[in-house]
Amino acid sequence: MQAPQLVERIRGGDRRALARALTLVENGSGELREIMAGLAPYTGRSRVVGLTGPPGVGKSTTTNAVARAARVRGLTVAVLAVDPSSPFTGGALLGDRVRMQEHATDPGVFIRSMANRGHLGGLSWATPHALRVLDAAGFDMILVETMGVGQAEVDIAGQADTTVVLYAPGMGDSVQAAKAGVLEIADVLVVNKADRDGARATLRELRQMVAMKDRGDREWKPPIVMTVASEGEGEGIDELWDRMEQHLAHLEAEGGLLARRRARARDEVRAIVLDTLRSRMGGTGDAGDLDALAREVAEGGRDPYSAAEVLLKELGTAPR
Amino acid sequence: MQAPQLVERIRGGDRRALARALTLVENGSGELREIMAGLAPYTGRSRVVGLTGPPGVGKSTTTNAVARAARVRGLTVAVLAVDPSSPFTGGALLGDRVRMQEHATDPGVFIRSMANRGHLGGLSWATPHALRVLDAAGFDMILVETMGVGQAEVDIAGQADTTVVLYAPGMGDSVQAAKAGVLEIADVLVVNKADRDGARATLRELRQMVAMKDRGDREWKPPIVMTVASEGEGEGIDELWDRMEQHLAHLEAEGGLLARRRARARDEVRAIVLDTLRSRMGGTGDAGDLDALAREVAEGGRDPYSAAEVLLKELGTAPR
Repeated sequence: MQAPQLVERIRGGDRRALARALTLVENGSGELREIMAGLAPYTGRSRVVGLTGPPGVGKSTTTNAVARAARVRGLTVAVLAVDPSSPFTGGALLGDRVRMQEHATDPGVFIRSMANRGHLGGLSWATPHALRVLDAAGFDMILVETMGVGQAEVDIAGQADTTVVLYAPGMGDSVQAAKAGVLEIADVLVVNKADRDGARATLRELRQMVAMKDRGDREWKPPIVMTVASEGEGEGIDELWDRMEQHLAHLEAEGGLLARRRARARDEVRAIVLDTLRSRMGGTGDAGDLDALAREVAEGGRDPYSAAEVLLKELGTAPR
Repeated sequence: MQAPQLVERIRGGDRRALARALTLVENGSGELREIMAGLAPYTGRSRVVGLTGPPGVGKSTTTNAVARAARVRGLTVAVLAVDPSSPFTGGALLGDRVRMQEHATDPGVFIRSMANRGHLGGLSWATPHALRVLDAAGFDMILVETMGVGQAEVDIAGQADTTVVLYAPGMGDSVQAAKAGVLEIADVLVVNKADRDGARATLRELRQMVAMKDRGDREWKPPIVMTVASEGEGEGIDELWDRMEQHLAHLEAEGGLLARRRARARDEVRAIVLDTLRSRMGGTGDAGDLDALAREVAEGGRDPYSAAEVLLKELGTAPR
């Protein structure tokens, strides 16, 4: 399929075209340039919600419950599950098949896992590109589920209009440490598996941390919702939905929605620029000058800054 | 303190100079250029071991036990705990104080936590720079402990001569998914908390995964060690040490040690180049052209590739 044809079919919501485009994104295909150019005029409509949190908190189940809530409200929804823990192996890692079963016959739901192969730069342009494809396909809502404690959570916040951070009771001390940083990106906090021992304690802790945290000039104070996503239609999911709606309304009132979307575009453009430059430096093959310079640096014969200067000159830019 | 003075004191192993240099690294100080140039001739001696794994597996305890093993063998050791989950808050997050207590009176041990503020690019140049400082200070061994499931683990493998990946019994399904990718970076695998229920099952699973995994032309097959790092001097730590030694011997025999160190230098140089270019694009302030272009992209009036092209031209490089 040629790019203009593919763009046309994506706009029509054709499943196979969507799947193909996302595979091209995953593989960093050279056709992406033309496809993204073709899709650009049709983007900017979808609402993007990021869901993240440490392993074992029930992200997939919660995402699934939120997707269900969207359908009940008559919205079409795409689920993009990004697995930043696996730059090596592509394919459906996050239980797509299980999820697919529930929504298999519903044309208003599209589900896709994506491995993240980008090394330097984390999510880089892959997630923004995937969002662009789903956006142009006309989905009302895109749920981006990211696995991982750490940078992935922070990256996802840059991509979403609303970021939901999930916890569960009894995650242990190590998660405590992560909380501090993650609080700063959370728009809504969830204590999932709230029927388990320790849920009230987790809630209390999060409350304290939210109270302590100075979010600067942003007035939004992340609400905390207790859920049992695996129970029935998802206990607490309606409240989670309402909180997400409130956050969206807050963003719109404050002009924050446009600001977030501009920031997303900025990250995407910057990622493309850096990726282009990186490949000029010998991205994966690492041939040529970078290799020779690295050898000198490894042997102590040259410091890394002077090596960087040589490369910058070579890239056609003057050293600062 | 001026840079040449600081370099002199670092070489002498002065604690306060080390602490100061690492703070400069953490803050991305402009003095780094001169300091790194000064240190370059004195680097390349330290052995770097990375320890990583999901939260709750006992990384700090194991790192501590390995540090103890190094001291018993007469080696000086530096511990660098990198916390990629927290780009926001600096300082000692990973229990430095607890660790400090054991080694407080030992001049052969240096311990330091480092928050990782780099957004795009993950560890970027901060960890390589910190290793450079500790290397020039003459430590025989540097233990780099990284928290997190995901990209952080992969990044650390690029920095270390030997990468130790830790697991513990009963980490749940989500960790399973992470194992596949992480196996490819592990030189030695550890099942810590091996006195707990499910340790044999975890061992079996890892064994199967190692057996299945094709590591290509690299002949090293990661051994799996069972440890209870919190017990006495650390049960199984002597075996872990032996496996680490065997891996080092293997690397040296195959010329892999130099190759890894060159790759580390390559990453460091590349990170400096990209960081320089990023700051020219308006790294944090995001003023100027990138902002205006991002606005157009966010509104669908321009696609991200054509925006990238404008920026590339501006950086003095021709579009491809």
